[in-house]
Amino acid sequence: MIKVFIIGTGNLGTQLCYALEKSMNNSVKLVGYRNNKGQKLESSSAPLFQNSIPDCDLIILAVPDDLIAQVSNSLNISEVTVVHTSGSVDMKELSSFKNHGVLYIPQTFSKERAVDFANLFICLEASTDTTMKQLELVASSLSRKQKHINSTQRRELHLAAVYMNNFVNHCYYKADQLLEKASIPTALLQPLMEETLKKAQDLGALKAQTGPAKRGDQQTINRHLELLEEDDRDMYRVITNSIEQTHGKKL
Amino acid sequence: MIKVFIIGTGNLGTQLCYALEKSMNNSVKLVGYRNNKGQKLESSSAPLFQNSIPDCDLIILAVPDDLIAQVSNSLNISEVTVVHTSGSVDMKELSSFKNHGVLYIPQTFSKERAVDFANLFICLEASTDTTMKQLELVASSLSRKQKHINSTQRRELHLAAVYMNNFVNHCYYKADQLLEKASIPTALLQPLMEETLKKAQDLGALKAQTGPAKRGDQQTINRHLELLEEDDRDMYRVITNSIEQTHGKKL
Repeated sequence: MIKVFIIGTGNLGTQLCYALEKSMNNSVKLVGYRNNKGQKLESSSAPLFQNSIPDCDLIILAVPDDLIAQVSNSLNISEVTVVHTSGSVDMKELSSFKNHGVLYIPQTFSKERAVDFANLFICLEASTDTTMKQLELVASSLSRKQKHINSTQRRELHLAAVYMNNFVNHCYYKADQLLEKASIPTALLQPLMEETLKKAQDLGALKAQTGPAKRGDQQTINRHLELLEEDDRDMYRVITNSIEQTHGKKL
Repeated sequence: MIKVFIIGTGNLGTQLCYALEKSMNNSVKLVGYRNNKGQKLESSSAPLFQNSIPDCDLIILAVPDDLIAQVSNSLNISEVTVVHTSGSVDMKELSSFKNHGVLYIPQTFSKERAVDFANLFICLEASTDTTMKQLELVASSLSRKQKHINSTQRRELHLAAVYMNNFVNHCYYKADQLLEKASIPTALLQPLMEETLKKAQDLGALKAQTGPAKRGDQQTINRHLELLEEDDRDMYRVITNSIEQTHGKKL
């Protein structure tokens, strides 16, 4: 049995605690967690350990990227595997532990929004075979999908996730803003929002592209730039240029 | 009964022909269509009229924006309502016809991809009450949802649709490119792609925003810029700035 201790109960840490507790896999057990506020998780029956670390086999750091070094250095343990959960931090930041690794899940987490782990890819990297075996067992208690991803790949994956989530969401926001300005309910564009995703999944995003930039329709582009607030023109222009370059409308 | 003739069988025109033919509403009938290639639609039993216009009440122009003036000027008709389907062209471009208007559907269409019109908002504008009644009848034969949208609103709506579809899809593409470069299957980010949409629908895009730009995490932003090809840095930088401005991380 693998006994897991989680440090950090932000968006990801909280959801990890809940998911491990709910898991039907009897060979993985959440033995406790800690956070910087000393705050009990409302929906978890695992104990909070603020000043000590209970007997465990694996410590999962779910702390902000820039705290990984500090938190791991403060751990006074040996023989325990330590992994972090960051998309953009190298595994070797934990190399002071013999058994170390990374358990990265490319998803957007919130404390309040329950996430169904079953369909998420758990991306694993480990310093030793023993560690990888442990991580595979923990991952399989969370999801049916897992993948070995090294630090170099994970950096690219995390950057891709920024486009797929952060940038896409900001485009949604900009669309919402325009609708609000024109007193149009946001519901009007929900079918388009959904079809955009399905079409990209079915055809691939390259083939799914449409619109004035793809067509090289400079007249419509100019009209759009006139409509926009000055602060928003840069973003419109740069994305338009990038689409034109991708689809051969501009050198 | 309203007899409808469609000019233009590109992505939208083709789907409109099919949807009108399939409609169970007996008070609306597709009497034919025309296109610039004189080409029969494979799955339509309505006749192709290349050199004449059959007896009809409503002509729907589904032609590119910059051909609306030319095509409508060449129509030798009176007493027939003429509408266009463009998001960004003013209704008054058709003002030489007494009864004129716009039937705009904010969706991305392809010839090959069947679209379920039932849940789409049909956006209507009309020069006269009679025309609006006609358009409402046609719209209700296609979908359960319709909305009166004037030319000013429609311009903003179309611009919002560019963000919601064209720009979002291009972000999907850029993510795909990064995954391919790192030999990571695109399936890995599909759960994130879907959760990004659902989260924005549930919380609103403003609250749903996460990521380094939202947090003001300059270290991660710099690492991402280093990873990117030079051609892609502009787009990353400008969207990041826009997120920072929205969420108060930058003046």
